[in-house]
Amino acid sequence: MRDVAVIGVGCTEFGEHWSTSFRNLFVEAGALALEDAGVTGEQIDALYVGNMSAGRFVEQEHIGALIADYAGLASNHAASTRVEAACASGGLAFRQAVTAVASGMEDIVVAAGVEKMTDVGTGASVDTLAGAADREWEGFAGATFPGLYAMIANNYMHRYSLTREQLAQVAVKNHDNGVHNPIAQFRQRITIDTVLNSSLVADPLRLFDCSPITDGAAAVVVVPLERAREFTDSPVRVLASAQASDTIALHDRRDISTLDATVAAGRRAFAQAKLKHSDIDLVEVHDCFTIAEICAIEDLGFCAKGEAGKLTEEGVTALGGALPVNTSGGLKACGHPVGATGIKQIYEIVQQIRGEAGGRQVDANIGMAHNVGGTGATVVVHILGGC
Amino acid sequence: MRDVAVIGVGCTEFGEHWSTSFRNLFVEAGALALEDAGVTGEQIDALYVGNMSAGRFVEQEHIGALIADYAGLASNHAASTRVEAACASGGLAFRQAVTAVASGMEDIVVAAGVEKMTDVGTGASVDTLAGAADREWEGFAGATFPGLYAMIANNYMHRYSLTREQLAQVAVKNHDNGVHNPIAQFRQRITIDTVLNSSLVADPLRLFDCSPITDGAAAVVVVPLERAREFTDSPVRVLASAQASDTIALHDRRDISTLDATVAAGRRAFAQAKLKHSDIDLVEVHDCFTIAEICAIEDLGFCAKGEAGKLTEEGVTALGGALPVNTSGGLKACGHPVGATGIKQIYEIVQQIRGEAGGRQVDANIGMAHNVGGTGATVVVHILGGC
Repeated sequence: MRDVAVIGVGCTEFGEHWSTSFRNLFVEAGALALEDAGVTGEQIDALYVGNMSAGRFVEQEHIGALIADYAGLASNHAASTRVEAACASGGLAFRQAVTAVASGMEDIVVAAGVEKMTDVGTGASVDTLAGAADREWEGFAGATFPGLYAMIANNYMHRYSLTREQLAQVAVKNHDNGVHNPIAQFRQRITIDTVLNSSLVADPLRLFDCSPITDGAAAVVVVPLERAREFTDSPVRVLASAQASDTIALHDRRDISTLDATVAAGRRAFAQAKLKHSDIDLVEVHDCFTIAEICAIEDLGFCAKGEAGKLTEEGVTALGGALPVNTSGGLKACGHPVGATGIKQIYEIVQQIRGEAGGRQVDANIGMAHNVGGTGATVVVHILGGC
Repeated sequence: MRDVAVIGVGCTEFGEHWSTSFRNLFVEAGALALEDAGVTGEQIDALYVGNMSAGRFVEQEHIGALIADYAGLASNHAASTRVEAACASGGLAFRQAVTAVASGMEDIVVAAGVEKMTDVGTGASVDTLAGAADREWEGFAGATFPGLYAMIANNYMHRYSLTREQLAQVAVKNHDNGVHNPIAQFRQRITIDTVLNSSLVADPLRLFDCSPITDGAAAVVVVPLERAREFTDSPVRVLASAQASDTIALHDRRDISTLDATVAAGRRAFAQAKLKHSDIDLVEVHDCFTIAEICAIEDLGFCAKGEAGKLTEEGVTALGGALPVNTSGGLKACGHPVGATGIKQIYEIVQQIRGEAGGRQVDANIGMAHNVGGTGATVVVHILGGC
């Protein structure tokens, strides 16, 4: 099994791209990644595209081939494959690219993620996103994602120490980070009062506890580590790639306040990388809702259950803290084009490790990305390090 | 890179399963494959599921996790990933499973395909399937898949020697084979007159030139070749796994009568396996329409362009011929649950190599599977051999 490195990254601005099509979003991100990596389209052996629901958002399936075509890769008939795991689609696309290079079957591989969510109305968006949950037992009963995560939040707050203000601080901190991120959908600071006074979506979650509907695409280029220096002076090595699944429906879980797939994928990643928690300099976690960031920090093992709210309040997870979480602004402020998010996390970690993160730069040599599908039925965790 | 072998296969009956759900179709096929392989669910490291459009057919995304859950794999948090490439989704799922095992990242992996197409009406089915073509330039202009393949047929018949009767013989031959296949959707013989007198769908293609709408699922278990004998006395080795893409829209092709991605994937597969055409004992090709089988035989290099009609008429591709094609009955008679078809092809080749194909058994040591997405924007070719 070969070691794998990231040699280039690219990302569109995240936001509401009314005048850009699904396919063009990808082309922009892909071109930025190829330029950053210093490779041409003809050199690409294969492409993996993470996308959740283009079938419903833009009535288009067969995304891998479409993207390869519009990226100009059809002429050399490069292999192109879409992978889907709801909001973890991007993370899984990266994992497939890593696997393809590790296996020796491919050499220069692009992993990308793309979602165009604003071509349908909000109601259709919410219903499409509900396809990430159990349609027969959750969706048909009327459950939406804010509703499902509200159940997690209620259960958590009943059992552990977490104040409404601590929960709001997750969003405040992520908006603080997003201010420094040129691709972020929201680049303005908010206060705890902004969150507490925003409209109630699903008790206790309010509008500013929720990640937005977003269009966007991101792409990264991976190669065998032994070839990385041909392309760049600052390759970033993939130290671990771990994936785990859990029941698709929340009601089938052992414990709805703990995402067991996060626990499993996190443990596997630390074991693969032979690292301990104190080795990790920053983490991008899947904060689709504020409560999700709280759970993720704990379930990845960075603190005990029930302590993440306090850590957040104390600034431990802020830019200047001991464990910066979601320096990109996270899903909350950077935006959440569901299929692209997992790749954007890799994009952020790579920028941080290369020292290119501008106003949000932290002292970073090793970073972790945590990408979740649904309410935790799929979790993928990557650890990346400078070399 | 490790060698990979298939140790078990399973498939549901293909047909209109009004009383079975999407998830239960998979469970049936998966259970048959595990039983055949002699492995238990707890031993499974990872799962790859090919599915084209559950988002639109059953309003469910996040298929990998759903399937892992309903297969009882959630408790050990096995990794589960959906891959999609329209009608080539199954073939790509198999390829991802092979890659995962070859890389050393996983050991015991299930590759599966599933599609439940009859939960929506025929119009919605046709529109959903059109999502495999270019929605912006083909779908919105009203193109359907019978229409696109009719253009291929017209172009082909204008340039090469192919009679309407030879084209019909593809369907007649595949129905002859389907009679012997217990999982086939159609198990009755037809005549050339049946095809010629059936209703016109898109000139020159008639109803009996077209594969049907089908529900079904198939699954296979792959392991490192070095471990295969732990599980079975008759492992089947993966000799090649090749994939290629092309433009998503037909009008962008160099030549619409030749599927260049089939040419590319076929050449890559022969090169990987270090085999020549005469080494191949049987082929499962992607006969979504009769013209597609004609093109596939030629584009894979088994004869020159323009000769496959004559070969078919002469019985070369029939069960008793020199190159049996679609012994399973093909997509035409066995049925075409789009995400499952690529895995069913592997299922058929494995059964043939193991000598378990009953009335459709041919002399088989090496077989090829050819799975197409859309009008050829994705093609995946596998070669399997006894060992």
